[in-house]
Amino acid sequence: MPTPIITLTTDFGAADGFPAAMKAAILGRIRDVTLVDVTHDVPPQDVAHASFVLGTVARRFPAGTVHCAVVDPGVGSERAAIVAAGPDGQVYVGPDNGIFTHVISLAGGVSPGSSHDRPFLAHYRAAVPDGWQAWAVDVAAMDSGEVSRTFHGRDVFAPVAAQLAGGASPAEMGELVAEVTLLNLPGPRQSDDGLIGRVQYIDRFGNAATDIFADAVPPGHFHTLAGNRAISGLSESYASAQGAGCIVASHGFLEIFVPGGNAAEELGLGVGDEVTVRV
Amino acid sequence: MPTPIITLTTDFGAADGFPAAMKAAILGRIRDVTLVDVTHDVPPQDVAHASFVLGTVARRFPAGTVHCAVVDPGVGSERAAIVAAGPDGQVYVGPDNGIFTHVISLAGGVSPGSSHDRPFLAHYRAAVPDGWQAWAVDVAAMDSGEVSRTFHGRDVFAPVAAQLAGGASPAEMGELVAEVTLLNLPGPRQSDDGLIGRVQYIDRFGNAATDIFADAVPPGHFHTLAGNRAISGLSESYASAQGAGCIVASHGFLEIFVPGGNAAEELGLGVGDEVTVRV
Amino acid sequence: MPTPIITLTTDFGAADGFPAAMKAAILGRIRDVTLVDVTHDVPPQDVAHASFVLGTVARRFPAGTVHCAVVDPGVGSERAAIVAAGPDGQVYVGPDNGIFTHVISLAGGVSPGSSHDRPFLAHYRAAVPDGWQAWAVDVAAMDSGEVSRTFHGRDVFAPVAAQLAGGASPAEMGELVAEVTLLNLPGPRQSDDGLIGRVQYIDRFGNAATDIFADAVPPGHFHTLAGNRAISGLSESYASAQGAGCIVASHGFLEIFVPGGNAAEELGLGVGDEVTVRV
Repeated sequence: MPTPIITLTTDFGAADGFPAAMKAAILGRIRDVTLVDVTHDVPPQDVAHASFVLGTVARRFPAGTVHCAVVDPGVGSERAAIVAAGPDGQVYVGPDNGIFTHVISLAGGVSPGSSHDRPFLAHYRAAVPDGWQAWAVDVAAMDSGEVSRTFHGRDVFAPVAAQLAGGASPAEMGELVAEVTLLNLPGPRQSDDGLIGRVQYIDRFGNAATDIFADAVPPGHFHTLAGNRAISGLSESYASAQGAGCIVASHGFLEIFVPGGNAAEELGLGVGDEVTVRV
Repeated sequence: MPTPIITLTTDFGAADGFPAAMKAAILGRIRDVTLVDVTHDVPPQDVAHASFVLGTVARRFPAGTVHCAVVDPGVGSERAAIVAAGPDGQVYVGPDNGIFTHVISLAGGVSPGSSHDRPFLAHYRAAVPDGWQAWAVDVAAMDSGEVSRTFHGRDVFAPVAAQLAGGASPAEMGELVAEVTLLNLPGPRQSDDGLIGRVQYIDRFGNAATDIFADAVPPGHFHTLAGNRAISGLSESYASAQGAGCIVASHGFLEIFVPGGNAAEELGLGVGDEVTVRV
Repeated sequence: MPTPIITLTTDFGAADGFPAAMKAAILGRIRDVTLVDVTHDVPPQDVAHASFVLGTVARRFPAGTVHCAVVDPGVGSERAAIVAAGPDGQVYVGPDNGIFTHVISLAGGVSPGSSHDRPFLAHYRAAVPDGWQAWAVDVAAMDSGEVSRTFHGRDVFAPVAAQLAGGASPAEMGELVAEVTLLNLPGPRQSDDGLIGRVQYIDRFGNAATDIFADAVPPGHFHTLAGNRAISGLSESYASAQGAGCIVASHGFLEIFVPGGNAAEELGLGVGDEVTVRV
């Protein structure tokens, strides 16, 4: 059997040692494991940011990888801890707060049951999507001697990830559930002005990813209205644009960028802002 | 034999490649090893920060783990390089400047020989505590071809950690010592006003950990005076509080927090500030 | 065969998951591998910063280590992807934009073919230096199903690194090339005022590394003029200086520092600024 892989995605930051405490909990249960940090620099309690990052990265790992994601404003409350498994052959462990929305929705960029009548990225309850299964972790039955009220990353999610990586089946962790929490990602809508999408993520370079997936990008020439700018056409690379540009980025979404600059700052773009594509 | 584990705790930051140079020094000596970063984002030269983080994390690793900690304002001076081993079954390598204080003191939160007459977190010399042994590394006898005056992390501590992880005994590194340097952590004191503790650590979320350990927290209802606020009672989870709250956090100390906010900023709390618990 | 090692050096930051996408691409091709982050916090698109860090760290890894470096303002343009192998027994993969300059030049600190008539750190084309070989990756022939125009770290460099770590020879990746891009590092020059070097790197602590390598440092007493300060003599350790000091640092270059302070800020030093050593 190849060495199991566990990835970690959190908002714990690097300075306080919280990710290391999770790794200690894993290594105490399974010693021969490859640990990969997806990121620990999710902005504090920004579930949507974590969801986007995990959505772009997780399915690229070998099948069977266990992804442990902990951005958890509701730690210690009644929110469930879930394990989810889907058609991509990966296994996910984390709070049931929408953190796996992009993992579920990324092919096409629209979350199942989402709606334009609900605020962008708002939480809602949805039936577990086709092809997926989800289980609620039975925390009371866990092998941990201690489960704190404040650090389920260490006391619940990491131990469950270690057990799954060691070969336990998700069904050993708890009961199947029929519903999960998702973030509202209804995708762009057609209007008389054109295709109206929204900025859903801004990366380190200031590139602003919209919710307009590759398959919705018009084939011919178009203009994109983003922030204070009208951008003509589609670039094939970051280096080829003069001034602000539009590109289908590596995650598959239409993205606004400025070569060598920061598009979000220069164009005044934030998450949730509308972007219009006009043929 | 399971794969040995070495953890790294430094103030080297991520940008300059210093932790990677330590890992190169380790991997050149022991190839089959699990390397875990506890943190490299200790504020520059903040030995107390590193001590707290390591204290909360280290004992959670499997027994036999080697913890290499390098926050070392005195590099190149006469301060000793030490190896320490204690009742927790872990092995510690680093400068003899108090960086292992919390590792030694965490059960109860009081450093052996500490005193209310000495400034909070000040350095002092203490007898090696019961159950512990410490050795001074004989740097002149090291196998390294080169020992720089500026980077003992790479040239002394990492090589020693690699040797220990590979099975060398601490006694091979140098002579036993009778005293080590600790940071002054005398714990809270009773006064007419109540139990007076101090803030000893502020984490990424702005949570302010005091030096009042779980076993000193009064059983019934109490008020906590912290910064500009009086907090009523004890919360069971971060999510359950309205406004500022008090909780026994995952490290075992009483902690001041604001749900979804930054307690240190909002209450004006810094390391060393007094916090009063009044029944 | 020992477990192969791949190191990663990028400007991708930690927050967006880009390094994890590279690791996924590697682990999908080679499962038994040690992954080491040199840094992902290179300032965006700062090729010279990455070059310096990699130069100080790479050669310290065991021979055969594959170093994958991606700071790539020209991604998607015509710049080549190269593999380079040199007398240090290491293998390098990255864009042909000068990112391996310090790796090649570090013994002595001068890049082959560099000139005082060209701006400091400017790009130029140079013959592949003696003892080195370089190959241009044939991207069209890659095994990846998909090569995006925006993320060669994931789609080109990581897959090539994985193949090399798995035992493929560089010649399998593409054709030998005769020239590579380097950054102009001509080293210090003698003048009537003394030896005039430049600041080439500023680290987390504010230490300012010059381009004056150890072997060019005068043997006797000297003064160093740096920013707004004249520094007398050479320190043997950071702790031993009073105020600003000069030291031959662990990377081998003369460095300006302030004990417990930030030399770059306090002396007003930036990359490219002149530093004069006067006997």
